[in-house]
Amino acid sequence: MTELNGTHDPALRSWVASANVADNDFPIQNLPFGVFRRAGTGEAFRGGVAIGAEVLDLGALRQGGLVEGLAGEALAACARPALNDFMALGNATAGALRAALSGLLRAGSSHEARLRQLLVPQSAAEYDVPARVGDFTDFYSSIHHATAVGRLFRPDNPLLPNFKWVPIAYHGRASSIRVSGFAFRRPQGQLMPPAAAQPQLGPSRRLDYELEIGAFVGRGNALGEPIPLARAEEHLFGLCLLNDWSARDIQAWEYQPLGPFLAKNFLTTVSPWVVTREALAPFRVPWTRPAAEPAPLDYLDGALVRAGGAFDMHLTVWLRSARMRTAGTSAVRLSHSNFRDCWWTVAQMLTHHTVNGCNLASGDLLGSGTQSGPAPQEAGSLLELTAGGKQPLVLPDGESRTFLADGDSVSIRGWCEREGFVRIGFGEAEGTVLP
Amino acid sequence: MTELNGTHDPALRSWVASANVADNDFPIQNLPFGVFRRAGTGEAFRGGVAIGAEVLDLGALRQGGLVEGLAGEALAACARPALNDFMALGNATAGALRAALSGLLRAGSSHEARLRQLLVPQSAAEYDVPARVGDFTDFYSSIHHATAVGRLFRPDNPLLPNFKWVPIAYHGRASSIRVSGFAFRRPQGQLMPPAAAQPQLGPSRRLDYELEIGAFVGRGNALGEPIPLARAEEHLFGLCLLNDWSARDIQAWEYQPLGPFLAKNFLTTVSPWVVTREALAPFRVPWTRPAAEPAPLDYLDGALVRAGGAFDMHLTVWLRSARMRTAGTSAVRLSHSNFRDCWWTVAQMLTHHTVNGCNLASGDLLGSGTQSGPAPQEAGSLLELTAGGKQPLVLPDGESRTFLADGDSVSIRGWCEREGFVRIGFGEAEGTVLP
Repeated sequence: MTELNGTHDPALRSWVASANVADNDFPIQNLPFGVFRRAGTGEAFRGGVAIGAEVLDLGALRQGGLVEGLAGEALAACARPALNDFMALGNATAGALRAALSGLLRAGSSHEARLRQLLVPQSAAEYDVPARVGDFTDFYSSIHHATAVGRLFRPDNPLLPNFKWVPIAYHGRASSIRVSGFAFRRPQGQLMPPAAAQPQLGPSRRLDYELEIGAFVGRGNALGEPIPLARAEEHLFGLCLLNDWSARDIQAWEYQPLGPFLAKNFLTTVSPWVVTREALAPFRVPWTRPAAEPAPLDYLDGALVRAGGAFDMHLTVWLRSARMRTAGTSAVRLSHSNFRDCWWTVAQMLTHHTVNGCNLASGDLLGSGTQSGPAPQEAGSLLELTAGGKQPLVLPDGESRTFLADGDSVSIRGWCEREGFVRIGFGEAEGTVLP
Repeated sequence: MTELNGTHDPALRSWVASANVADNDFPIQNLPFGVFRRAGTGEAFRGGVAIGAEVLDLGALRQGGLVEGLAGEALAACARPALNDFMALGNATAGALRAALSGLLRAGSSHEARLRQLLVPQSAAEYDVPARVGDFTDFYSSIHHATAVGRLFRPDNPLLPNFKWVPIAYHGRASSIRVSGFAFRRPQGQLMPPAAAQPQLGPSRRLDYELEIGAFVGRGNALGEPIPLARAEEHLFGLCLLNDWSARDIQAWEYQPLGPFLAKNFLTTVSPWVVTREALAPFRVPWTRPAAEPAPLDYLDGALVRAGGAFDMHLTVWLRSARMRTAGTSAVRLSHSNFRDCWWTVAQMLTHHTVNGCNLASGDLLGSGTQSGPAPQEAGSLLELTAGGKQPLVLPDGESRTFLADGDSVSIRGWCEREGFVRIGFGEAEGTVLP
């Protein structure tokens, strides 16, 4: 796995004061990449790095001549309106830029005065999806989610026989991926009510979120050339947060035999910031399987994955209803899970995806599937939290929910923390349901 | 539906002699668009139009100043290495260019001498996928295919309850779409043999083709704005041939509950030429449902579709084995079906795809799903032709097939013909299986 280096040093502090505030998402040990512009200006989007409550403008930094060599090459690619070319350079090159940025932003840097002019407050920025996503693949990698959902349909036999062997996935829709902050109309579709003689067209009544991780592909592979597991993480650029909005009633009627389609392709929300694989190095943990469970097939097993293939990453979901916004009360947390409980690692997903020769391209997005943990309060969707809509959740202000109501905002947040290291965060992936 | 105009006149002849040969695919009444370059030159790809055995180089034509106005605007977009921008201009603009080309290429044109210099023999050209496909969606629209495949798994109840109501589809993989002529390695994947205790990794033993139509999206729609059926065909640029290669054994093990993934994303082959909706106008036929069948829901029903929403388009599949190539014998036809037998029209697929607000972009590709007809010899896959591999096909040279063997080339061809009109063809979508 990735080696720790000076950029992870917990003693590092930045001359950007907000980056040194305890528990902020973007200390100097993080340095996630995204694309942004000053809100309302219509400027071109370009790369940026989050530092505290600010964005460092990489397009402007490029003009300055402060960053040269390999890092300068990476910086040039970051000046574009999507990070695909940057991701394609590979992790060593991205790491060189990250190291250069770490030097420029740390307390005592001789370039502070100059760099201050290149900061844009995050409160004054707007974002786009970090890369042009050529293909979006969504996995189904949480055994707790698969079991809980399976139990709703097959109480005696919740988990399908392939689950423990195959990293199950389907292709999602790339065109409807949007960055955090997007509000969308409740989708309509064919619904088949239980007692009805025929389906009807109408707005979904069982609109749900799914708590997911997104993984951006760095270097791609050629068609016909699988990526072996030992090299899979060389193709992983970094992680973000992802909400795979789902219309359960549309899904129930349409999904046989080819899987979800209109139930999920109306919107997928991602967070603006991609936390690099390198920044996540301190938070890698062994990937394990209970002894009673089958070992994966050889092509999905290896020392690197077992030593530290998993990510110890906290994930939470927050709901804020229209009534809460009017009352000025803050969002309520619906669940809290951890990506380390995932049945498969990101590297296993990448390798499985290419074992048949399928080609991945830089900027492609893999979703992890809903990340639910073993405990009931760790469920990553309302479908699970409400037992398929049968047990409403009662919110602190007295409202109740089986599925999402018009006006509801859902925010996914995530962070990593470990004794002896500085906590890093992912920001949020938020979206609001319009009538 | 599209009106007939002068470009369809059966009396038209071209000064390109090969375009006037009976039963050639590309008479002057066709004028399909693609992207090409002279083989082996490493030139940039640019737009071209097929005429007889030649390609008219639209990149070079643009330099000439012969085409102006709306048609000239379209021509400028055709000079690029993918036709997305051209498709985005809409069908009226595409039609203006097609009319201009029809005038330039017809016998008696005063520009013949000049245009002769812009012809490249098709035998000396190589092609790329006509557009950068942002998203590829594959439908499942043939009731004969769905019934035949369903019967293999559920003899008593072959057709799922949603089939007659929902245009079923799944998202395919855009990155692995290749143009006709691509040879590929037999994919490997997880296989679960009937008596095995656990799955194993190995090359697919049940490799199949699927006979499909591809539809390229012209103008797109914004996220959140469905396309009503009455306007759906304004968003259809044209049709091509498509082979959705499928590994049935990988599919059988992986597909529950989210549908096909690695079983189909290793390669999709399309023909180089896109036949425009306008060129297909003479071959439109009413879309009908047997009286005993349910009418579609209102959003999928309308006078335009019923009057002429279907395409009378012949489709054939041809197989040529390594042995046949060595012996110099020609390909053998495996099946012959017609797109008019499809349960849904392309317009219904477009409208359904967007009913939830999903956005389509110019150059997106919709596959029709396997087009099988009502008779056994009209089956569009080996899965159907061999009853799931139980009844081998015996080929004229004595070879037999359940599924594809290494060295097999599969070619899909298609054409439209009607009394009083000139036959137009689609060329071919061909691919070869390597060990």
